[in-house]
Amino acid sequence: MAKDFSTREENYSKWYNDIVQKADLAENSAVRGCMVIKPYGYALWENMQAVLDKMFKDTGHSNAYFPIFIPKSFFSKEADHVEGFAKECAVVTHYRLKNDADGNGIVVDETAKLEEELIIRPTSETIIWDTYRNWIQSYRDLPILVNQWANVVRWEMRTRMFLRTAEFLWQEGHTAHATKEEAIIETKQMLDVYADFAEKFMAIPVLKGTKSENERFAGALETYCIEALMQDGKALQAGTSHFLGQNFAKAFDVKFTSKEGKLEHVWATSWGVSTRLVGALIMAHSDDNGLVLPPRLAPVQVAIVPIYKNKEQYNQVCEKAAKLKDMLQEKGIRVKLDDRDTHKPGWKFNEYEFKGVPLRIALGPRDIENNTVELARRDTLEKSIYQQADLVNKVEHLLEAIQDNLYQKALTFREEKTFKADSWDEFNTILDDKGGFIYAHWDGTAETEQKIKDETKATIRCIPLESKPEAGTCIYSGNPSKQRVVFARAY
Amino acid sequence: MAKDFSTREENYSKWYNDIVQKADLAENSAVRGCMVIKPYGYALWENMQAVLDKMFKDTGHSNAYFPIFIPKSFFSKEADHVEGFAKECAVVTHYRLKNDADGNGIVVDETAKLEEELIIRPTSETIIWDTYRNWIQSYRDLPILVNQWANVVRWEMRTRMFLRTAEFLWQEGHTAHATKEEAIIETKQMLDVYADFAEKFMAIPVLKGTKSENERFAGALETYCIEALMQDGKALQAGTSHFLGQNFAKAFDVKFTSKEGKLEHVWATSWGVSTRLVGALIMAHSDDNGLVLPPRLAPVQVAIVPIYKNKEQYNQVCEKAAKLKDMLQEKGIRVKLDDRDTHKPGWKFNEYEFKGVPLRIALGPRDIENNTVELARRDTLEKSIYQQADLVNKVEHLLEAIQDNLYQKALTFREEKTFKADSWDEFNTILDDKGGFIYAHWDGTAETEQKIKDETKATIRCIPLESKPEAGTCIYSGNPSKQRVVFARAY
Repeated sequence: MAKDFSTREENYSKWYNDIVQKADLAENSAVRGCMVIKPYGYALWENMQAVLDKMFKDTGHSNAYFPIFIPKSFFSKEADHVEGFAKECAVVTHYRLKNDADGNGIVVDETAKLEEELIIRPTSETIIWDTYRNWIQSYRDLPILVNQWANVVRWEMRTRMFLRTAEFLWQEGHTAHATKEEAIIETKQMLDVYADFAEKFMAIPVLKGTKSENERFAGALETYCIEALMQDGKALQAGTSHFLGQNFAKAFDVKFTSKEGKLEHVWATSWGVSTRLVGALIMAHSDDNGLVLPPRLAPVQVAIVPIYKNKEQYNQVCEKAAKLKDMLQEKGIRVKLDDRDTHKPGWKFNEYEFKGVPLRIALGPRDIENNTVELARRDTLEKSIYQQADLVNKVEHLLEAIQDNLYQKALTFREEKTFKADSWDEFNTILDDKGGFIYAHWDGTAETEQKIKDETKATIRCIPLESKPEAGTCIYSGNPSKQRVVFARAY
Repeated sequence: MAKDFSTREENYSKWYNDIVQKADLAENSAVRGCMVIKPYGYALWENMQAVLDKMFKDTGHSNAYFPIFIPKSFFSKEADHVEGFAKECAVVTHYRLKNDADGNGIVVDETAKLEEELIIRPTSETIIWDTYRNWIQSYRDLPILVNQWANVVRWEMRTRMFLRTAEFLWQEGHTAHATKEEAIIETKQMLDVYADFAEKFMAIPVLKGTKSENERFAGALETYCIEALMQDGKALQAGTSHFLGQNFAKAFDVKFTSKEGKLEHVWATSWGVSTRLVGALIMAHSDDNGLVLPPRLAPVQVAIVPIYKNKEQYNQVCEKAAKLKDMLQEKGIRVKLDDRDTHKPGWKFNEYEFKGVPLRIALGPRDIENNTVELARRDTLEKSIYQQADLVNKVEHLLEAIQDNLYQKALTFREEKTFKADSWDEFNTILDDKGGFIYAHWDGTAETEQKIKDETKATIRCIPLESKPEAGTCIYSGNPSKQRVVFARAY
């Protein structure tokens, strides 16, 4: 199986596509730019959803559901938002088909034209704030802490599975607050939730920061983000949390009576992560043998493969394997016993290795005699023999060890790929030879940022939250700068 | 609160809408026919989803995700399907908006017209079977047992929240099998899953049966259904499971090599339930005091309301209430402690009664002295005093008792509203005076069925699975009949 797919070095982009398709995560559909998320890929997304959903609920949020359609006129209400979102989108103009009078199959019924076109949501601020107007009268109605799991559509011209697709799945939180301070606290809290999720569950270290004005969400006063580094040295924006100020409240006339009896506009945030995270997960850990998944999110944490030469051995080994499976499952471990007799053990070994299952157990007649099992780690490919009596402890320990190891490897990689550049030459050399995150001085103007982007394809990934003010000169313009920002080429 | 909403007798339809809106389940949106599902209503749907999803996985199914868009030409491939579904639907014709040259806001960019229109899925058989073609070569690739949780759009002219909306949420299972027998077993299995869910979790008894040809799913050879009875005597189809034969495999050219080496078309099923079930739940159990929810699905199973006269009592009572809450939560019970001091206890009592919370605990200073609590049941409105030491047991017991009572009440109601009619006059009298399910003889023709529908608005809800053959004469045509079928007016 490993032979017919690319290595990272040969062709990083093909390597990624090969893993997505051959590990049964997703495939392109008959509809341009839309993917089919296959059961194994969707199980991964479900595990991510389950963790995130609990984190949202633990921080006081509830889920709700708003219409997929947004009246065209809603987009025009927030001036920046319309520029950012009402362009490449799917437009519904009619609501009926009919049989063609000339017998050419079915055609659009031109008499069923909508008075106002409906846009398939690219994001839901407009329809949600139009709804919130009726939910909010007094400070007692605030805060509103709502999240939505939904599909959205952005008509992207160049698509790549999980990373950029016309339709994708995501969650979008939309909160309403009585004060600016409270809204900013919420924005930062959700950024921390995303960073915790990325680091503790996806095993991906992330930089937290704010976006430059150019890269800000259309309609936001401040966009916070987490940025991850992929193995090809390119950055990937893994989540954003926006402080929207009173922009949407003003656009949709959402006011409340404060404790002091004053009529004021409501403060807003929005925050989201998407199926793009599946792409990040694939690119962060996988290797030339296929997918590598962190145990906390892996749909199957342990695969058990029986080894046998005849029917009698098959029965004996499978009986024992089923018992081991039950023991592990009782501890909440996600186990798959692959007792298919239509495939050879070697084929199954390749299969689970390629699909990134963190631990593989091989169990054969000799193991039955000796009360042993062979355990193989996906991350290091190490194999060890353990007593069956120790199995549950060993598996629990190894799953934690693999989770930690993946995070540490990713962190070490990022540290090795993080640079400082103090001149334009140095900046370009690092960018072309090494890639990664480059901390450099920038004069703070959108003009310089755009020129750097045009000349190098590198963008400001974020203005990092943790970094300290440091006086310097802009690598491009030579003008004064107060702080280094993080540049990279990005997905 | 109870004063400004209708009773069932005054206006059943308004009673339903009042509950939906005033219990914060859903509201109409700015988009015609689309609703906003509010957090309390969505929490109910999430609980239903969680139970169903586990039932699907326990029967071997996995979730996946297919595109929301279906190319128009796909609908023409299955002859019956196109008649049923490619009519009232949302049609995407363009993929870009632009600023109007005359400054009239944003308009559709006519240069961005799709070559082939895309339909927003009203159901996904076509796009899924187009995908399955590439997944299936051999009998070893079968069965495919896949489910999708998704939004779908059907451009309904008359909409009612939850019961019939232009966009709704649902799950659609789509399975592929090597044999006819296996596909039929799957179809029936999923019908049983739906019936179990309705009876054990929703506390709604259902009739299982097959649809007449007229009422069959477009493209199915047989449609199995569960039918529930609402309090106004109208039936509601609560779930369907379709045996699709080889229709979609033939339309999308999906073949496999059998064990015997023969190339054959694949056998298919599909099955679904939707947010319509929330409507069924509301109408089955609620009363003139508002919503009544079965404990197994209620977002909040127990609401604790502190009673106090001053700050000291408030602190004392809330401290105790928090302990009781923790005790109950440890047992997995969903508890809300409403310690808001902005609302009076009486207001809260009304609120939780109206929102259908199964149990309410009132805790005041006297209870603290006596180590007691007052427990009120939503279903019977009975109140009792219990010792705090007994609380967990009593609550667990009462939640089960309420669940059983709701089911028994609904069953008794259905039995009282189930009739036999042996003549056309009798049929019409029962239909107009009593409503409910009417078992009557039918000659088996689509023509008679249509005439009965035209004259009475009653339809054949199902040909019940459990009923025995019985010779008789059709109530309408007088022609011979072999079995009674179930008629009702329906949602």
